[in-house]
Amino acid sequence: MYPTPEDHLDRHVHGYISDKDEYLRRLRRIEGQARGLQGMVADEKYCIDILTQVSAMTRALESVALGLLHDHLDHCVRDAAAAGGPEADAKIKEASEAIARLVRS
Amino acid sequence: MYPTPEDHLDRHVHGYISDKDEYLRRLRRIEGQARGLQGMVADEKYCIDILTQVSAMTRALESVALGLLHDHLDHCVRDAAAAGGPEADAKIKEASEAIARLVRS
Amino acid sequence: MYPTPEDHLDRHVHGYISDKDEYLRRLRRIEGQARGLQGMVADEKYCIDILTQVSAMTRALESVALGLLHDHLDHCVRDAAAAGGPEADAKIKEASEAIARLVRS
Amino acid sequence: MYPTPEDHLDRHVHGYISDKDEYLRRLRRIEGQARGLQGMVADEKYCIDILTQVSAMTRALESVALGLLHDHLDHCVRDAAAAGGPEADAKIKEASEAIARLVRS
Repeated sequence: MYPTPEDHLDRHVHGYISDKDEYLRRLRRIEGQARGLQGMVADEKYCIDILTQVSAMTRALESVALGLLHDHLDHCVRDAAAAGGPEADAKIKEASEAIARLVRS
Repeated sequence: MYPTPEDHLDRHVHGYISDKDEYLRRLRRIEGQARGLQGMVADEKYCIDILTQVSAMTRALESVALGLLHDHLDHCVRDAAAAGGPEADAKIKEASEAIARLVRS
Repeated sequence: MYPTPEDHLDRHVHGYISDKDEYLRRLRRIEGQARGLQGMVADEKYCIDILTQVSAMTRALESVALGLLHDHLDHCVRDAAAAGGPEADAKIKEASEAIARLVRS
Repeated sequence: MYPTPEDHLDRHVHGYISDKDEYLRRLRRIEGQARGLQGMVADEKYCIDILTQVSAMTRALESVALGLLHDHLDHCVRDAAAAGGPEADAKIKEASEAIARLVRS
């Protein structure tokens, strides 16, 4: 189930995020891209070059989201489904809504 | 698991698709939109009006995909997760890949 | 400008759509995909296979939209920009709005 | 055309970017969102909440891209179209390719 205090402690050790350091590395890189874009706008770099950077950053962010979503299905949704009951219904509905937000954004 | 002949028969009666008639109705409407677009292109209707129709059709298709994906999580993935083992791993990996294709398309 | 009666006649011969037959061919294929999806749903084919087809259809539709948008920029927007004035402003605003709908759908 | 040294100087004053301070403000906010996401991942916040933040950040980035693209059409593409010739062809092709990258990312 999600979350009991014990789960929560456990999660900090073997949490649902498969490789926290890798996600943090990718998010720091995305933060750097956001800073780089500010420099490009401040210097009025050529618009198409700025847009190319925005597309790269969007794809990097999308890739982080898809990784996290996979981890979520693989841990929280899987555990809830195995336990069954209304918790399973709720987790599946919640995951579907998050997927819809990603597909539409 | 998926599929045994019995499951398959069962699936035709209480299958994973929550409301088959509703999906068929929406897909017939999407087919009609594709036909309508051919008429607009043949008549060289104003380009922006054609693009507005394409956007509407894309959203309708996306909405069908999100509904089917929810049904899939709610049946196939849930059942596999409850049964556990390598089948569960495979179903979750497969669902994540389908979500990635949707997000990137 | 867009449209004078003469332009309109001309457009039916050398209109803004670069290759009408090619667009019609692709839209007929998309219509066929919509019909194919109905068959897959009616037969309750495996959900992931249906979603793969939906992704392919979405990409095909997106590709038609991007082609039409290029044709539109290359004819209507270019001509309006060359003529200048409020018509140019209006065409550029309208194109930007159509692009936003495509990006968000 | 684009860029001469004079244009470049001029661009820093009346450049193609409609409201530089507004874009910088939005990009700083996006940079803050990227930093916030690192905190959420480091603390293993609930996955769905992280995904909600990623969706919000993606939409913010998309909105910056659409604004810059409009500015680009309204200045560089419009000027090139008014001037005509191969420069106009090149600018329209380049803009169409940037739009395709945005739609597909």
